[in-house]
Amino acid sequence: VADVAVLGASGYAGAIAATLLYRHPFFELRHVTARSESGAVLEAIHPRTRVPLLLEDYDPDVQGEVDAALVCWPHRVSAPAVAALRERGVRVVDLSADFRLRDREVYEDWYGPHGAPELFGDAVYGLPELYRDGIPGSDLVANPGCYPTAALLALAPLARAGLIADVVIDAKSGVSGAGREPSPTTHFISADENMTPYKVERHRHTPEIEQELAVMGAALPITFTPHLVPLAQGELVSSYVTTSREVSDAELSDLYREAYEDERWVEVALGPPGVLEVRDTNYCRLSVHLDVRTGRVLVFAAIDNLWKGAASQAVQNLNLMFGRDEGEGLQ
Amino acid sequence: VADVAVLGASGYAGAIAATLLYRHPFFELRHVTARSESGAVLEAIHPRTRVPLLLEDYDPDVQGEVDAALVCWPHRVSAPAVAALRERGVRVVDLSADFRLRDREVYEDWYGPHGAPELFGDAVYGLPELYRDGIPGSDLVANPGCYPTAALLALAPLARAGLIADVVIDAKSGVSGAGREPSPTTHFISADENMTPYKVERHRHTPEIEQELAVMGAALPITFTPHLVPLAQGELVSSYVTTSREVSDAELSDLYREAYEDERWVEVALGPPGVLEVRDTNYCRLSVHLDVRTGRVLVFAAIDNLWKGAASQAVQNLNLMFGRDEGEGLQ
Amino acid sequence: VADVAVLGASGYAGAIAATLLYRHPFFELRHVTARSESGAVLEAIHPRTRVPLLLEDYDPDVQGEVDAALVCWPHRVSAPAVAALRERGVRVVDLSADFRLRDREVYEDWYGPHGAPELFGDAVYGLPELYRDGIPGSDLVANPGCYPTAALLALAPLARAGLIADVVIDAKSGVSGAGREPSPTTHFISADENMTPYKVERHRHTPEIEQELAVMGAALPITFTPHLVPLAQGELVSSYVTTSREVSDAELSDLYREAYEDERWVEVALGPPGVLEVRDTNYCRLSVHLDVRTGRVLVFAAIDNLWKGAASQAVQNLNLMFGRDEGEGLQ
Amino acid sequence: VADVAVLGASGYAGAIAATLLYRHPFFELRHVTARSESGAVLEAIHPRTRVPLLLEDYDPDVQGEVDAALVCWPHRVSAPAVAALRERGVRVVDLSADFRLRDREVYEDWYGPHGAPELFGDAVYGLPELYRDGIPGSDLVANPGCYPTAALLALAPLARAGLIADVVIDAKSGVSGAGREPSPTTHFISADENMTPYKVERHRHTPEIEQELAVMGAALPITFTPHLVPLAQGELVSSYVTTSREVSDAELSDLYREAYEDERWVEVALGPPGVLEVRDTNYCRLSVHLDVRTGRVLVFAAIDNLWKGAASQAVQNLNLMFGRDEGEGLQ
Repeated sequence: VADVAVLGASGYAGAIAATLLYRHPFFELRHVTARSESGAVLEAIHPRTRVPLLLEDYDPDVQGEVDAALVCWPHRVSAPAVAALRERGVRVVDLSADFRLRDREVYEDWYGPHGAPELFGDAVYGLPELYRDGIPGSDLVANPGCYPTAALLALAPLARAGLIADVVIDAKSGVSGAGREPSPTTHFISADENMTPYKVERHRHTPEIEQELAVMGAALPITFTPHLVPLAQGELVSSYVTTSREVSDAELSDLYREAYEDERWVEVALGPPGVLEVRDTNYCRLSVHLDVRTGRVLVFAAIDNLWKGAASQAVQNLNLMFGRDEGEGLQ
Repeated sequence: VADVAVLGASGYAGAIAATLLYRHPFFELRHVTARSESGAVLEAIHPRTRVPLLLEDYDPDVQGEVDAALVCWPHRVSAPAVAALRERGVRVVDLSADFRLRDREVYEDWYGPHGAPELFGDAVYGLPELYRDGIPGSDLVANPGCYPTAALLALAPLARAGLIADVVIDAKSGVSGAGREPSPTTHFISADENMTPYKVERHRHTPEIEQELAVMGAALPITFTPHLVPLAQGELVSSYVTTSREVSDAELSDLYREAYEDERWVEVALGPPGVLEVRDTNYCRLSVHLDVRTGRVLVFAAIDNLWKGAASQAVQNLNLMFGRDEGEGLQ
Repeated sequence: VADVAVLGASGYAGAIAATLLYRHPFFELRHVTARSESGAVLEAIHPRTRVPLLLEDYDPDVQGEVDAALVCWPHRVSAPAVAALRERGVRVVDLSADFRLRDREVYEDWYGPHGAPELFGDAVYGLPELYRDGIPGSDLVANPGCYPTAALLALAPLARAGLIADVVIDAKSGVSGAGREPSPTTHFISADENMTPYKVERHRHTPEIEQELAVMGAALPITFTPHLVPLAQGELVSSYVTTSREVSDAELSDLYREAYEDERWVEVALGPPGVLEVRDTNYCRLSVHLDVRTGRVLVFAAIDNLWKGAASQAVQNLNLMFGRDEGEGLQ
Repeated sequence: VADVAVLGASGYAGAIAATLLYRHPFFELRHVTARSESGAVLEAIHPRTRVPLLLEDYDPDVQGEVDAALVCWPHRVSAPAVAALRERGVRVVDLSADFRLRDREVYEDWYGPHGAPELFGDAVYGLPELYRDGIPGSDLVANPGCYPTAALLALAPLARAGLIADVVIDAKSGVSGAGREPSPTTHFISADENMTPYKVERHRHTPEIEQELAVMGAALPITFTPHLVPLAQGELVSSYVTTSREVSDAELSDLYREAYEDERWVEVALGPPGVLEVRDTNYCRLSVHLDVRTGRVLVFAAIDNLWKGAASQAVQNLNLMFGRDEGEGLQ
């Protein structure tokens, strides 16, 4: 048994992470924190969690007593807390963007000054299906962004095969991706029966996707545009790849089958995936298609942005860090 | 005053067309037809129409007495009815795909044998903002498909300027686009909280978009993928254009302002459009962006698939055919 | 032509009222105000209005120059503004609750101190279908609450016939009823796929409904419970009436037909109404049923809470105040 | 280990039941059947189940080899299949209405001729929180209807205390309650942004609720009206009780606390419940309120109509029949 804490358990991803860990066979959830709602019981704020733990104020000396922590805080606020926990020997999965990028200039360009520069570069990028080997030995795992999770699982087989000459990523997300803070954007009346592109040209997941594509052999600038759609949880990434050479349907099928046939959480489907098929799960479901008219390769990947795109992937990483079965507590 | 009929008034687009024409200052709605629901009053089936006319069986000798007809039937079924009406001197706006394509081989490739080959090629493509001049003199107007309407309005300024080297079109539509027939796809439980690509590689609006882009100077195969999203009416077309040469923000702004500043139904917005902003209207709202990182041009266009994408555009065409103000009855 | 102003035009009801008046054949919309968004153009905040007027700060000397004003402010804030406008001779339709109640003690019990006690009791209750005669001569019309509008139209024929011994009103409203202010309640993630009773035992429309039922002859305490449902606009009132004596189906039909056969905005339907049937309209659609097993009478009434429940009914009242056709500008 | 079959596994409730049993620690899911979709794998039709079993045609000699079966068929079709399984010694939980009513005349009045009259009256009514003792010894359990489940849990404490003089039940359900068959009612365009009462005066759950209320001491005709609301899963029952004598808040609290404090699946909440709080769970969440103005007692109960209202309650019953922990496989 290992003791864990969830920092930022009152947010959507944090609440799910707390729920998963509270019922986890191996981990024992000892602390949950919330900035403005400390003093309340988690299930009073998020009834679906049915987690009766008291939300605490953040205090690294209190929450730092655990073996591991999931930090579900926004970027820039997260890094110092991660540093404080690491100083106390706590192993951390950080769900913010603070430790995902490897180039500090790129980080500061997109996010501003880093809050714990001494740790910059220490983290492993926690996308287990692509980088499983590095996670068990790591004390700091950067949990990928939701869009990068789906986009990288969609594109990895092509990237590794050197097949990506150019790519356009059109992504669509449910409203939970905008966070729990009430705002004009997340108001029911704004989102219901609506859909709209957002953060055109400048969504912060762009450099993260580019970085990892480059690691896999596809160093190129990408076009990435997210859209807001009227549903709660679910994310669909539609990728349009111009290939570096002609490919056949059979080659594509082989590539994806080989990449994922042993991956329990990646489903390669024949038809295009719907986000409802992966709702409330750690699955990524994808399909790959050759557009014979243009030669382009189309890959569609669906995940639940709060699960595989955040909370359940964090638990998957935690399982790996502690030598547990990767799917423990995620069924 | 001119007498009009709406064939297929029990479908979604037909019902809206009937509503608009029933209250139109110039046209007098004389006949509405429905295949399986004839004998009922239109407003009993579609209460929102508040059109108390009796749905008739199709009979060209009955409905053929009018001056003009809107034919809201499916492709292949539509052509023979259009022919029968034309024989009786009725001017027709056809909302099916039967008269949109100019190359019969292409038509038969995507749709099968044509139902009125003698008329093939006679029609004007009824997208008034692009082809306004040809419509007044025409007796047969092919009302554009919903996706082509949004895509062509989005791309026309670039196409005419010879700027399109390649284009990916990722389109999203509400469920009304799938028609009124109950089916597993349109079941609330399938569509709610879901989104999914559909007809990947083979949506029939592809050749229609390509044909019109070619007319405007951009002859190239395109990648077009529609997605189903959980809302009733609304369509968003996200276009990713690789340009034939470098363009600047200023040039783009000028291109779109010049193209549309006198167009009452096209709104060039600064920020990306939401479909709710054009719901139940004849507007197309679009925005154009230069992605400086890749040099790509992004154009987003929102319409109501049942209005500008079908019924209200048909009335707009009818207004033009009869020398009326283009917006009559559409406010 | 009469000049009008809309105070509080940035709220949902205010924006619709402004839209209707901007396009109204008789009224000329001269001023729109907004507390926190003054300086912006109305259509920049509410694109659907397509009203290009500048939102002003409230200043009774500026907006007080018009002939009439719609005040779309919250209760208690509204009364002083109404008083200031009345002092300047402006005829007012007030959409708040401040002038709906006739008993000041009841008002203060449910709302607190009144902001313009000198005017208390001066207003006419503006439900035209029930109190049409008093509206033309009035300079201050209290626009009914959304729930009272539907409930009173549902129950008036029974109340006037002395048939109501007891009544339970179970009401359901879309999320726009909760206002435009972002809050945990109106967050998409809270409202989507959810429904819940709210303000149980203490919704402020209770005394308003009781007051008007008493005026019509049914002085009794009622049980009224609203529920929040996941849709944007629409309100359904389900009324369960224990009658003071046995009634027959025929008697019920006659009662409702006689009450409403000349009312253009009230539709007595055979089957139960759906809120979609009255969306974006001034209609109230209702059905009445005798439950033979219990002898109870069931009346269901559907309105659009922002239209007949607020903005369009306010314009209907304004039409009457100025001797215009009641439906002008509402088609 | 006991072998089980799910008949009718392609419906919504059947698919969830199959999912729960496929992952159940004690039961082994051996057979799943479907009428029109036999030959397909369950997860091909319902991807969320992730149950790779082949859907079989119904054949009592094949599926009759198991120890227990869940029959998820419509009323009247179910009874003969249940009889065939019982003949082969299979213990059955029947999710249809065929064995819920105790008075055959009442059954035939509401449903028509019974399909297995020899078994009529043999079943135990499977609402464990109210009738737990009878279930373990039973070979045939009638799983309650969704509305009766919520209504009876809401009203049982009052009924048993002899406090119900009269009751109005206003119920609201998500669209999955209408079944998987595509129809005009379940079309996204009909249900989205709509809500409407349905089966007014004549919903078949009425006699079932009355029967069980009578068993608990409240023999009276009730008024029960269901409404369709635009969400997938979730049911809210709002009960308005006229009491036989005055009650206090304290008495009500005590009644409900005593009734349910040991019930793991019934949550008595302070504020009114939302259906989202019980989505995808076996919980019933309720709140009780005294309306001091009228003396009425209001009880609100929320369940997931497909879980506690059908599939998970069936598994709860199965657990009890086989002496297992009641919550096994339901966490």
